[in-house]
Amino acid sequence: MEYLSANNKKIKRIMGLQKSSKDRREEGVFIAEGIKMYREAPAELLREVYLTEDALKEVGEPSVPYYVLEPSVFAKISDTQTPQGVLSVLKRPEHSFEEVIGEGKTGADVNGPDAGGSNAGNPERTEAPLLLVLENLQDPGNLGTIFRVGEAAGVTGFVMSKGCVDIYNPKVIRSTMGSIYRMKFVTVPDILEAVKTIKAKGIETYAAHLQGSAIFTDYDYKKPTAFFIGNEGNGLSDEITALADKRLFIPMEGSVESLNAGIAAAVLSYEAHRQRH
Amino acid sequence: MEYLSANNKKIKRIMGLQKSSKDRREEGVFIAEGIKMYREAPAELLREVYLTEDALKEVGEPSVPYYVLEPSVFAKISDTQTPQGVLSVLKRPEHSFEEVIGEGKTGADVNGPDAGGSNAGNPERTEAPLLLVLENLQDPGNLGTIFRVGEAAGVTGFVMSKGCVDIYNPKVIRSTMGSIYRMKFVTVPDILEAVKTIKAKGIETYAAHLQGSAIFTDYDYKKPTAFFIGNEGNGLSDEITALADKRLFIPMEGSVESLNAGIAAAVLSYEAHRQRH
Repeated sequence: MEYLSANNKKIKRIMGLQKSSKDRREEGVFIAEGIKMYREAPAELLREVYLTEDALKEVGEPSVPYYVLEPSVFAKISDTQTPQGVLSVLKRPEHSFEEVIGEGKTGADVNGPDAGGSNAGNPERTEAPLLLVLENLQDPGNLGTIFRVGEAAGVTGFVMSKGCVDIYNPKVIRSTMGSIYRMKFVTVPDILEAVKTIKAKGIETYAAHLQGSAIFTDYDYKKPTAFFIGNEGNGLSDEITALADKRLFIPMEGSVESLNAGIAAAVLSYEAHRQRH
Repeated sequence: MEYLSANNKKIKRIMGLQKSSKDRREEGVFIAEGIKMYREAPAELLREVYLTEDALKEVGEPSVPYYVLEPSVFAKISDTQTPQGVLSVLKRPEHSFEEVIGEGKTGADVNGPDAGGSNAGNPERTEAPLLLVLENLQDPGNLGTIFRVGEAAGVTGFVMSKGCVDIYNPKVIRSTMGSIYRMKFVTVPDILEAVKTIKAKGIETYAAHLQGSAIFTDYDYKKPTAFFIGNEGNGLSDEITALADKRLFIPMEGSVESLNAGIAAAVLSYEAHRQRH
């Protein structure tokens, strides 16, 4: 334990890590703020903790190096408007592309196109991969929400294009509410090559597209499944759409022109969940 | 048409309307920013338009009184970080509670608890009310998103407790992306009394609750249906939960403790949509 003043080099380093994705990448770390994010942090990733005296009393002594800060100093390193007084520095988890797409797993029981009733009796669980392929998502809150709802709906992995907002952006991390610690994800250099590999593994690929040819509830997601979700403003690129096995759309009543990417991911993932359980 | 300078009284009035829900209420108006929100504004509600010279060229001359502002003056009255240069002042629409809950409409064809397959062939459309009852929602972005996804999923009306964030908050209005113009909604003084009336009309009421007794896909939403959605942090109050005919839950895998209110509203509304189409 060590008390840090505002001019300490460590404080400047954390401020750099908060602001700069390059700094984070070069150090191979990310920052998670808040008590819940500290408590749920996997021991093998947690490296250092910065906290106020009050927060230290609340969460107890960390088992890794930690530093105590005056609230006014903590406010400087915090990315939030109402800091909870705990900031964790964590090593980035490393998930290989193969691990994320569930190499080797296949649908246990593949039925016909009829997805069955909505009755939850006799659940037939499947270990088949359920992937979200995210192309150029820009909104940090959206990306974090997609991780959270994805975990809840049983998504098994996230594949992100390098045009997506930095997954280690502090706002993304907070919005995941801890899902970042538990989910498998990877950012790939070439999303089109990644999709080709996913298809080659026998995973059925679906582009969520305003010009989809069938309604999303018409397909069988008990099989290994990957949904493509596009950028908030522009949707999916023509290139990735062309690679999809199927195009689907989410029907929209009234005059709504599009759905938020997080909402689309939620509706599709929970339809897969409904069919699988 | 009139050119306004920064010190004009009208500018101060708009700044007041942006900030103060009391000012908006007393005038009986609300503000909608942006080109899309201007173009979609119902003629019977639009009262005045404030715009920059560039925006005037783009959208053409409004048919109501309008005022042209320098971009620097427009920036003062704008609630957005990158203003589009158009701000509309609109009269508040008035929807009666009876109109919102779809007085007189009933489910055309009520089937058993089996919700049927997911096939979209032979849609059996129903005019049965599909209501969202929102208790004390606090996040403006959430509320706006719920209006947008609600319109898309075929929700017929929104009933809000008076503890909800002001529906006419500028951020709510923007987040609705125009749904505010098209949907029926009402803020009620006593949400419990409102729920009793809804039940008395034969509308089946469902509380979305972490301690729900059945999974949300197990019920029949082709009948007249109302979903209760609770506050982001605390969920539904015990009082409103006790009034619901049924408690349902959205299953959550992994370690997710709750879903964002907007996501929950989306998943429930689209399940109703799936069953109804």
